[in-house]
Formats: sequence, C-alpha cells, structure tokens
Amino acid sequence: RDCLLSRGLGDVYKRQFPDRAAARLLQSANLAPHEKPCYNYPKDRWENGVCKMEKHKKESEFDNETFFEEYAKMARSVDGLEAAGEWHQLRPLFPALEGKTVLDLGCGYGWHCRYAAEQGAKAVLGIDLSEKMLESAAWRTRSAAVTYRLCGIEDYEYPENTWDCVISNLALHYIADLDTIFRKIYKTLKPGGTLLFNIEHPSFTAGVDQDWIYSEDGKILYWPIDQYFMPGERVTNFLGCIVKKQHHTLQQILMGVLNSGFTLKAVEEAVPPEGLMDVPGMEDELRRPMMLLVKAEK
Amino acid sequence: RDCLLSRGLGDVYKRQFPDRAAARLLQSANLAPHEKPCYNYPKDRWENGVCKMEKHKKESEFDNETFFEEYAKMARSVDGLEAAGEWHQLRPLFPALEGKTVLDLGCGYGWHCRYAAEQGAKAVLGIDLSEKMLESAAWRTRSAAVTYRLCGIEDYEYPENTWDCVISNLALHYIADLDTIFRKIYKTLKPGGTLLFNIEHPSFTAGVDQDWIYSEDGKILYWPIDQYFMPGERVTNFLGCIVKKQHHTLQQILMGVLNSGFTLKAVEEAVPPEGLMDVPGMEDELRRPMMLLVKAEK
Repeated sequence: RDCLLSRGLGDVYKRQFPDRAAARLLQSANLAPHEKPCYNYPKDRWENGVCKMEKHKKESEFDNETFFEEYAKMARSVDGLEAAGEWHQLRPLFPALEGKTVLDLGCGYGWHCRYAAEQGAKAVLGIDLSEKMLESAAWRTRSAAVTYRLCGIEDYEYPENTWDCVISNLALHYIADLDTIFRKIYKTLKPGGTLLFNIEHPSFTAGVDQDWIYSEDGKILYWPIDQYFMPGERVTNFLGCIVKKQHHTLQQILMGVLNSGFTLKAVEEAVPPEGLMDVPGMEDELRRPMMLLVKAEK
Repeated sequence: RDCLLSRGLGDVYKRQFPDRAAARLLQSANLAPHEKPCYNYPKDRWENGVCKMEKHKKESEFDNETFFEEYAKMARSVDGLEAAGEWHQLRPLFPALEGKTVLDLGCGYGWHCRYAAEQGAKAVLGIDLSEKMLESAAWRTRSAAVTYRLCGIEDYEYPENTWDCVISNLALHYIADLDTIFRKIYKTLKPGGTLLFNIEHPSFTAGVDQDWIYSEDGKILYWPIDQYFMPGERVTNFLGCIVKKQHHTLQQILMGVLNSGFTLKAVEEAVPPEGLMDVPGMEDELRRPMMLLVKAEK
C-alpha cells in the first residue's frame, strides 16, 4: 500500500488531479529568482544555513530530506488549503481577521498565514521548527504582513495580551505537554481572543501503528484502537519515515483548554467535503475520525 | 466469553466480590413487605400492571425478562454507584444539590436519584421507560423527595425554568435525536442550572459489534472502529440480548450541547479508579474509551 496516497484527508486533490499537482510543482520550481516573493524570513539568524540560536536547534522530522521530499508531494503541500480535507470545516471557524494580529503555531508552508493576510490581518507570525518548511513558506509568501520564525512551539516566548488569534493546524500532536502550551496561548491572547486548532484525533493517535487492519485480500476491515488511556509517544510510519507523535486523550485536550481558562466554542471532527465523496478511497475517511477541530475563546 | 463479565466498568465489584453481590441480592429479596421503602411511584397511573397512559407505552428493552434478569445481576445494579466504574469521576462533577431540584433522565434503578436526595435535593424526579426498573427503583427508595415516573426521555414535557440540575447516566445513547433533547433540557433548566450526563463514548458506539477483536487464543488484540461518521442505530448483543443503541459522533454530542445554548464545563472519559486496577480484566478498560462524561451550564 502506498501510504502517501492512503494517508489523510489532505491528499484529495493529489488523488483526483495527479497531473495538475505535478504541473504546479513543476511550475513553482521554474519560477525565475526575481519572481520569488518577498522574504520576511529573519535571515540574520542564519549563517551558512545554520541557525545561530542554539536553543532553537531542535530536530524537526520535517527537515529529514526523504520525509521533506515526500511531504512536499502531498496535495496539501502542493495545492494548499483547498486540497486539505479539513479546510471546509476549519475556515468557517476563523474569527474575522481584518486588522487583527495572528500567531500560527507550526505554520509549515505558511498556508494559514497567507490566508490570514488575505483576510486582512495586519500582522501574522508563523513559527515552525523546520528550516526547510519555513524556507518554502517564505518563498511562497508575498504579503509583507507575514513573518516567519524558526522556533519550536514550546520555545516561543508567548508575550502577554499580544495576539487576537492563535491558530495551529496539525502541529499540536507533536507536543507532549499540551497543558503548558494551552496556558501560554491563553496568556499571549488578548481578552476575547480566539484559539483555533486542528489536531490529530485521539482515536487516530490511539490507532495501532496508525493504520487500518486489512483483510487478506487487502481490503480495509476496521480501524484498531489500543492503549487509549496511555498517552505519550507513538512511533509511526508516515510517508515512509519514522515519525514520533504524541497521543493525548480527548479529555486531556479539551480539559487542557478549559482548565487554561478558555470557553469552548466548537469541537468538530473533520469529514471530507461532500463534493469529493466520489474520489476513490475517500469513503474510507468516513470510517474513523482523523482530525479534531477545536475553537475556544479567552 | 461471558459478556456479563467482560462488559464495562460497572462490573468491578461483581468480579471482585461475587459472593457479596449474590448475598445482597438474596438479602433484598428476603425483605418483609413492611420493610419495603416508601413508594412514590405514581400507582394511579397503573391498572393491573399496565400503564394507562398509552403514549408512554413504548417498548423498553429493559422490560424484556431475560435482559432485565441479566442486568439485575450486574454489579452496578446490585451495589449501585460505588460499583460503577465511572462514579469516581461523575460524582465530583455534580453541583451542590442542597435544596435543589433534580431531574434524572433514564433513572433506571434510581441510584442517582437517591444520591441527589442524600445530598439534600428537595425534589427529585426520575423518569424511565422501563416499568420493571422503576418498580425496583421505587422499592429501593426511602426518601420522600424522590418521585419516579414511567416516561420516555423523548416524551417528558420539560416544563420551562423548572430544574436546577438535569442528570442522565448511560441513557442518552438510546436516543436518536439528541439535538432536540438538549434543547428541551436547556429549556427546562433554570438559569445557571447544570446538565450532567454520561453517555457511551463515540469510539465505543462506533465499535464493530461493540466487541474487541480477539486473537485465536482468545486474547484481546484491539478495539475496532468502523462507520464512525454514519451515526444512527447500532444493534448489539448486550447481556445475551439484542439491544439497539444510537451512535453519535463526538461532534454531534458536544455541538448539540453548545448549539442549545449551554457552556461546556467539563468533558471527561471514564477510566477505572486506581484502587481497582488489580482486578482481573480491569486493565483492558485502559485500552479504549467506553464512556463520555459531559457537564454543561445554562
């Protein structure tokens, strides 16, 4: 089985429009240097591609070359938000961003940073632990409102009452101690501010090897759950690489948010958009929840 | 496998103290008529054991004789709240009940009604669709503050601004249209009132035949999930009888609560109490979530 194809809602377009996805990749690669977008990435932090700030020199699995290359091929990497199966649910959860400040924790390619800028946000900071992802993010970004910083979610300083909106898409399941992060996010949000995140679903991170159980002839039988109440590290194979994730129970996630002082506004589970239900394999996404979307207010 | 023993957190004591459980059953059965507790059950509604109110004459699986007899043997039926594995988590979620009014939806044997009365509630109404359960509930109840009524959760009139607290323990997963019930509960609660319920966990109701997958030598391998995003009826074998339940996604449950106007105060998942972790089979309860506890305020 090709795990690149079988994994996740984000690969809708890749499966549907493989040629188009490939064409876009090619098109991007062929852009002339002067066509490259403005570069808000803090270059002064870098020397010959090495970060000067030792405390930021955590390892990122996304900087593993094989993994990065495979991830770059995913539909969500090539075609962005519209190719992400959760976007039709995540977008309506965003607050109005006109004139607002937005922090994106684990911004990756910066899709949500650029979306925030398009919505009129006056300042957007995307942080990520992966140098390669940020290089690519900055390269794709034309808005001067957006800045990227090489920084782990656990290492950011979270200044008090600073941001109107904190978003995080598919990054918090790499964080072991969510409680601390939720408290820091609460601190850094202005009163009335919004926390909006999408995290791998507890039923997904509690999956056995995070894969289906198949019949002898290769058909999906069901999604196996085990060790649900034993949160912590899960080592999985994602895009052919060993990736470490953190399993949290639903209670840990939602009570972490509530106990930090937030009011819960929405708890959703990503289902593929109706228009894509005829894509081969898409109906399997109805068989187990993969992503948990949470909106909370300070 | 004996599903009576393998099912659920509630059978802790039965597994641990089979003789004591049997002794209690015997002791109850031997009570003389004058020892029976006060009887708040509305007898005038009945004629030769048949309810006069036709609209309440829904079928209850709990009135099936085989099922009722088996259910009566469960530890939670014999030993009550202390034998219910979720009680150590549910109890702290109760608001102060001194002088309050409490409605219990699907009260069964009335354990939570009696607990509310013990906590000083001035009026407690337990409704249930099962005549046999209510007979037993009334028989076990001594407090004059508690009244039982044969009435389905969907059929209750939910008078406006009437109750301080609405509780429901392991009953809402028999309800197809939860949204309507949540709205009615919101209506019937006084401002500031509390909704507290325990429902079978979405990962549990989405279980394939609501059973584990076993190895050839009978060991539990994992808990299988399927058709998660297809809510609705699930026909399962519970205590040797066919029981119909309703699967709801997590989103349906929590957004149903939020969209009714409630503020979410707590979302928990039942884990066995530490002191019982050495009971054979109990550690399996850590492998998948079975119950979802939700507390909300109007």
